[in-house]
Amino acid sequence: MIDKKHLEYITSIVGDENIKTDKAHLIAFCYDATRSRFEPDAVVFPRHEQDVSDILKYCNEHKIVIVPRGAGSGFTGGALPSNGGIILSLERHMNKILEIDMQNMVGVVQPGVINMQFQKTVEEVGLFYPPDPASEEYSTLGGNVSENAGGMRAAKYGITKDYVMALRAVLPNGDIIVAGKKTIKDVAGYNVAGILIASEGTLAVITEITLKLIPKPKFKKTYMGVFPSVNSAMTAVFKSLASGANPVAMEFLDSLVIKALKQKFPQVSLPENAGGILIGDVDASSLAEIEDQLNILKESFKENGSIDFIVAQDEEEGKKLWFARRNASPATMVFGTKKLNEDISVPRSKLPEALDEIYKIGDKYGFQVPCFGHAGDGNIHVNVMVKDKTNEKEMADGHKAIEEIFQLVVDMGGTLSGEHGIGISKAPFMNIAFTEAEMNLFRNIKKSFDPNNILNPFKMGL
Amino acid sequence: MIDKKHLEYITSIVGDENIKTDKAHLIAFCYDATRSRFEPDAVVFPRHEQDVSDILKYCNEHKIVIVPRGAGSGFTGGALPSNGGIILSLERHMNKILEIDMQNMVGVVQPGVINMQFQKTVEEVGLFYPPDPASEEYSTLGGNVSENAGGMRAAKYGITKDYVMALRAVLPNGDIIVAGKKTIKDVAGYNVAGILIASEGTLAVITEITLKLIPKPKFKKTYMGVFPSVNSAMTAVFKSLASGANPVAMEFLDSLVIKALKQKFPQVSLPENAGGILIGDVDASSLAEIEDQLNILKESFKENGSIDFIVAQDEEEGKKLWFARRNASPATMVFGTKKLNEDISVPRSKLPEALDEIYKIGDKYGFQVPCFGHAGDGNIHVNVMVKDKTNEKEMADGHKAIEEIFQLVVDMGGTLSGEHGIGISKAPFMNIAFTEAEMNLFRNIKKSFDPNNILNPFKMGL
Repeated sequence: MIDKKHLEYITSIVGDENIKTDKAHLIAFCYDATRSRFEPDAVVFPRHEQDVSDILKYCNEHKIVIVPRGAGSGFTGGALPSNGGIILSLERHMNKILEIDMQNMVGVVQPGVINMQFQKTVEEVGLFYPPDPASEEYSTLGGNVSENAGGMRAAKYGITKDYVMALRAVLPNGDIIVAGKKTIKDVAGYNVAGILIASEGTLAVITEITLKLIPKPKFKKTYMGVFPSVNSAMTAVFKSLASGANPVAMEFLDSLVIKALKQKFPQVSLPENAGGILIGDVDASSLAEIEDQLNILKESFKENGSIDFIVAQDEEEGKKLWFARRNASPATMVFGTKKLNEDISVPRSKLPEALDEIYKIGDKYGFQVPCFGHAGDGNIHVNVMVKDKTNEKEMADGHKAIEEIFQLVVDMGGTLSGEHGIGISKAPFMNIAFTEAEMNLFRNIKKSFDPNNILNPFKMGL
Repeated sequence: MIDKKHLEYITSIVGDENIKTDKAHLIAFCYDATRSRFEPDAVVFPRHEQDVSDILKYCNEHKIVIVPRGAGSGFTGGALPSNGGIILSLERHMNKILEIDMQNMVGVVQPGVINMQFQKTVEEVGLFYPPDPASEEYSTLGGNVSENAGGMRAAKYGITKDYVMALRAVLPNGDIIVAGKKTIKDVAGYNVAGILIASEGTLAVITEITLKLIPKPKFKKTYMGVFPSVNSAMTAVFKSLASGANPVAMEFLDSLVIKALKQKFPQVSLPENAGGILIGDVDASSLAEIEDQLNILKESFKENGSIDFIVAQDEEEGKKLWFARRNASPATMVFGTKKLNEDISVPRSKLPEALDEIYKIGDKYGFQVPCFGHAGDGNIHVNVMVKDKTNEKEMADGHKAIEEIFQLVVDMGGTLSGEHGIGISKAPFMNIAFTEAEMNLFRNIKKSFDPNNILNPFKMGL
């Protein structure tokens, strides 16, 4: 518990209306998408950067833990106060789009801006912000930067880090810093923005984000490739991309997901004999280029055994094709009462082997493991389905299977997390992915920003 | 001077043939493109990563300074032993291309590989590595990563950091670390690769680099836009790019450079009444797209007052158009005996104003300031021409003019260095660009990697 005098001091900074300690608020800010719950000691809503600075300076002096929070939609507990302390909520006041600079194709936002709100705003003036995490409707750009969010369009357009040009941030000692510039080239000083991205709120509180924008592509079409097996679909992924295809997205559904979709959504029309499906969009500045792209995909899919290639003739048809992918996650629940889902990522050419081995691990423990996700960038959502979550043995086996999958992925040159981060959920697996030397370096970096360990402490296994 | 016993120990690691202390070697490794000279105490050629680790571990224990060096082609003294110590030369042994992974479109190299050698190797198999610093014929990829090298193609394709997927590196304590993966998405742990890029050899010695490749564009054409004034050319830069043009490069020559070229290379045919020139390539996967791109450029240039738009009909004609840009740097020497050249970078929309103000600063001190460079990404090479370099007053004025230019650029949201880094040359100007809080953070980061300050110490104003 935080001493009353500390809360009084923080109240003197932000005002009565911007600090809450009542039960309703503590509960409202105790959760995220992990379903773990940790109540904070207080929730504070800074009005602006200076508030953030004043709060951090005081908390640093008194060694009070601060956990920055956007929308609380993370999958690994990054925004949970798992070690107590104060939630610093950026979504109430620090949620403005500050500038859309059309001449330099740059947007400047506060951290609490919702991803989709920003996408829509820039598209209205003919610009485009590609990173589209599945949480785009509710997650904040501050959270996106802190977790280095990905999304479906990463196959062509990259991820959040590829769009961050500059950050303003407050260090734990209250110092306000600027990292990066509104310029394409900038090599003066250390790339501090580079290390703040994906640092999960453990190094500094981001207060302003400068994002690169690109011209909005004029044309878009949706395609679907149908394959007899997971293996042939996975082979088509890396072969088609290596042969020059450059789709916006290349999403994957395996045979279990297809089965689940048919069961849960009987109205959805999915090819009868599909063992694996690839779906995505192509975009371009001309229709001719769209046709080129579709042809490359079609030919390459065929060479790798596809049994059908469907192109949506309009947006409506496109939406129908996308229905299956958009509903893959809820559909998998037909296989169990609890889903242990991970977002592993491997070099694309390893996808066929990785999927084969993941199913084998599932078989060994008796789990169905439906898989889907962003095959175009090697990032797959793997779901170990526990039939009875009250069965301790089954749950324990599920976690063992997950650990084996992590080991497999790391052995293949892949990563524990393509998009979701480490937070608290994946912290126990950090030793699979990193050596003691690497963990020591992480701890030293953490200490160089936050010597008193007040900012989101003990996350990421640190 | 380093104690003889230390040199003997290092000899026991690398062998007699890989450590040099004779005068010829000390001179051969004392320079870079700054023309400053600092002789090292010894030059060591590690054979492999383990050598690097053993050397660093020993030198860290005995607080011996190590300066990593690629080709020594840097413009700011990053590879100079300005505080003595041992040059660790990566170019003799650690210069192999280890893998071109066509399936994942990734290259893996040792740090001593020459940029152009890598470009040529990947192009032979239909792939493309875009970063093309002017030093591409001789600079190493390790140096490119350490300085975050740019180049002409940055306008469309970005800079070195946009292609680094993973690094292997040795910390000053000898620990070998891996940062990043051969995957498009990876958000596990801090983005250590992100901060090693552009760290100018002050944090770790890079021993292996994994680089993203893209399919080689099939078609390319060269264009030249002729403008009546610098201001109209600079306006056309940001207006054309904001209107959807996406050229590989958009290089700029101002009227002084054009004048110098005519004087120095009478055979070069340059438009009579040109006050500013933009030159570059467009590339695409189809000829139709090339035409589209050229049309957008031509129209947009016209709207901004261009008086001519030339398209090279073949590669030979293209080379002729490029001749002027390629020889801009030597041509400027017609204006003086000493060139104080800086590579400032501003948001593109600030280019017209920035150039106006830079010329005014030149006028104030009586200097001609020919400018050219990578206007498409806002990065301009500014050359303050000193007529008599033996005149102390004139040299002092030149440095004052440079300092004013830096202040101007920073006030406009620009950076001290778009490509060349800080090293020792720009270290005195760091206080213009960074606050004490930011410099403190840099020092803390440096300390977290290198507590004994043995690795390229005191560079970047640290």
